Amino acid sequence: MKKRIITISREFGSGGRTIGRQLAERLGVHCYDKELIEKLAEQTGLAQKYIEEQGEYAPSMNRFSYAFVGRGVNGLSVSDYLWNEQRKKIQELAEKEPCVIVGRCADYILRERKDVFNIFIHAPQSERAKRIVEVYGETDTEPIKRLREKDKKRAINYKYYTEREWGRADNYHLTLDSSVFGIEGCVNLILRVLDEIKEK
Amino acid sequence: MKKRIITISREFGSGGRTIGRQLAERLGVHCYDKELIEKLAEQTGLAQKYIEEQGEYAPSMNRFSYAFVGRGVNGLSVSDYLWNEQRKKIQELAEKEPCVIVGRCADYILRERKDVFNIFIHAPQSERAKRIVEVYGETDTEPIKRLREKDKKRAINYKYYTEREWGRADNYHLTLDSSVFGIEGCVNLILRVLDEIKEK
Repeated sequence: MKKRIITISREFGSGGRTIGRQLAERLGVHCYDKELIEKLAEQTGLAQKYIEEQGEYAPSMNRFSYAFVGRGVNGLSVSDYLWNEQRKKIQELAEKEPCVIVGRCADYILRERKDVFNIFIHAPQSERAKRIVEVYGETDTEPIKRLREKDKKRAINYKYYTEREWGRADNYHLTLDSSVFGIEGCVNLILRVLDEIKEK
Repeated sequence: MKKRIITISREFGSGGRTIGRQLAERLGVHCYDKELIEKLAEQTGLAQKYIEEQGEYAPSMNRFSYAFVGRGVNGLSVSDYLWNEQRKKIQELAEKEPCVIVGRCADYILRERKDVFNIFIHAPQSERAKRIVEVYGETDTEPIKRLREKDKKRAINYKYYTEREWGRADNYHLTLDSSVFGIEGCVNLILRVLDEIKEK
């Protein structure tokens, strides 16, 4: 079956987000990344910054917002409320149009659909450390430490909502080490793969 | 740098072994799988059957051979002695000639080399269950149970010797779900990938 929906999960600093964007452009479809956050902000009334971070921070690690906002929405914590809205929005997008979705556990949320192709992009820590300094600039925290924190938080968040281990090969149809292929190489390779399997 | 050595790790029943063999044939190089076991048997004096199973059974789960054979070789347990010999043999093969190596933690053993390309092949349990019945026939144990046992033992063995989690995407440069691509599809895709990166 033709794969209409491509989900891209990625390690922080691996270039996965850029790969998603370039891939969507080449396929002539929407890439939902920032746009998804905007849509969710509109729908939920939550701040974009909060939604952006909730993709990476497990609820238990984010006690401040918990305590601050409380259990305000239909008896759900704000994190769980956001998760539900996110799930509904992603399912709705997948139903509506072919697209690329970056992050947000879309691989898990769309697991029952046969027209979804799940990709994971990663790279060695040393390469990612270089990249985050290039892309996001220096901060007071050392790059390797920044990576470890982000990776850990993403893994906890993924586990919390999906009960799966983040970064396991068997969650995805294809995983690529972007340090071997380069950003453009990954995009070209994914396009070939999609072309190859479209009749299967 | 050109990738001379291809390692294939695989979930039981995913077709990874067959992919390794076909890939080696198409590349015109040796595939070390059964041949590696034969060489190790010759070198160590251990039975082929024992060597074959040690690739899947963690030492702690194999008390019988431990108790039976004892700590006979230079003060090492037989498992650790075999691991050392296996490590040396795999390093020697990688030094000597381009080849494909299936299983045996070769991805980890050769981790310092720049000319190695690590692949992991997996597939959903339902697909693998069908395949093991086709390839290995029925047994008294249900296919899903056979898979789970094998997967568990491989994971423990890998963890014991490498301190890594088996099946994590970031242990490999490329991972493929063989149920999406098919055996031949995987071989073709890997050949393309190798061709693409050979100048990098």
